[in-house]
Amino acid sequence: MNGDDSVSRPTDDIMCATYRALCRHGYADLTMQDIADEWEKSKPALHYHYDTKRGLLLAFLDHLFTNYTDRVAAPEDGPARERLDALIDAALDPPRADTHRELRTALFEVKAQAPHDEAFRERLSRFDDYLTDEVRSVVGDGVESGAFRADTDIETTATLLVTLLNGAHSRRVALGADDGVREAIRAFVDDHLGRRVDESR
Amino acid sequence: MNGDDSVSRPTDDIMCATYRALCRHGYADLTMQDIADEWEKSKPALHYHYDTKRGLLLAFLDHLFTNYTDRVAAPEDGPARERLDALIDAALDPPRADTHRELRTALFEVKAQAPHDEAFRERLSRFDDYLTDEVRSVVGDGVESGAFRADTDIETTATLLVTLLNGAHSRRVALGADDGVREAIRAFVDDHLGRRVDESR
Repeated sequence: MNGDDSVSRPTDDIMCATYRALCRHGYADLTMQDIADEWEKSKPALHYHYDTKRGLLLAFLDHLFTNYTDRVAAPEDGPARERLDALIDAALDPPRADTHRELRTALFEVKAQAPHDEAFRERLSRFDDYLTDEVRSVVGDGVESGAFRADTDIETTATLLVTLLNGAHSRRVALGADDGVREAIRAFVDDHLGRRVDESR
Repeated sequence: MNGDDSVSRPTDDIMCATYRALCRHGYADLTMQDIADEWEKSKPALHYHYDTKRGLLLAFLDHLFTNYTDRVAAPEDGPARERLDALIDAALDPPRADTHRELRTALFEVKAQAPHDEAFRERLSRFDDYLTDEVRSVVGDGVESGAFRADTDIETTATLLVTLLNGAHSRRVALGADDGVREAIRAFVDDHLGRRVDESR
C-alpha cells in the first residue's frame, strides 16, 4: 500500500515465530532476538528478511488479516439470520481461545500504538472495514429476502454491529469482562433486524 | 480498595502535572522525571508523595474517575430520553477535545497494560461499572414513566450501550475513525427504546 512500508515477502515460518513470540513476550517487550529465537535461526538471518521490527510487525498484521478474512466470513449460503449469527460468532470467538487470549492482549498493545503510526492504523482499519463489508452484505441479503425488517438501515446496522464487536473485544481484553455481551448482541439482532416483539406474541 | 496499592493522599497539583505529562509524552515513555518537571519540583519531592510510577498512575486513575463521575452523569430531572441523550453525549464527547485526544490516547495505552495488572484492571472497570449504573437508572426511569417501551430489557440495554460506547472509544483512538457512530447510537436508541418505526408513521 505504502511505499515506505514495503517489506520482504513474508515467509510462513517467520510469521509463526512472530505469533509465538508475541504470545510469550507481549508487544511492549518484544525484540527481534525473541522472534529469531522462536524461529530457531539467527538474528542476522531474520534481519535479512525484515530490516526492522516495525516492518516485520506490519507484515505480521498483513498475515493476520489474511487469516482473519479466511476465518471471519459470513457463510455464503443459508438463511440470512444464521449467516449473520455465524459471522458474529466468528468475530467474537476465535478458535484456540487460550493462545488467542495472549495474542489478543498483544494485539491490543499494537492497537495502542496505532495513534502514533499511520501504517499501523491503516492495517488495523482493514479489519474493521472488512467486517463492516461482510455485515453490510449479509444484512442487505436478509432485507432483500424478507428475513429482516424491510425498513432496516443497512449502514447504521453495520456501524452498530462493528462498534459492538470492537467494544466487546476491548472490554474482554482490558477488563477480562465477558458479561453477557454475546447474549446482548443476539437480543439486539432479534430486536433490531428480526422478530419484532409485537409480531412474536 | 487493595492494601497493596495504597498510595499517599494525592494532591491536585501532582494530578494536573501527571495529566500534562501524559498528554505531552504518552504513557509508554512517561517517567517520574517528566511528571516532576511538569510539577516544577524535584523528582525526590515527587517520590516523597508517590513511591513508584505505578502508584502515582493508580492515584491518577482514581482522580480521573472522580472527574468522570462529575462530568458523565445523567441529569437528574427531565424526560428520560433527554437524560439518556445527555449521558451518551457526555460519555462520547469530552470537553476540551484537543487536549483530551492526547489524554485518550495515553489512557488507551494504560488500558493495554490492564491485562497484566489487576489493580489497573480494577480501576478501569469502575468507569464501565459507573456508566452501566447510570444507563440502567435512566432507562429504568424511562420504562417506569412510559417514555420507553414497556418490554425493554434494562440489563441488556445497559450492556449494549456501554459496549457501544467502549467500541466508539476504541475506534476513535486506534483508528481515528468517528464515522457516524453518534448517529448510529441515536438510531439504536430510537429503534430499541423509543419510537417504534411503525408508530411514528
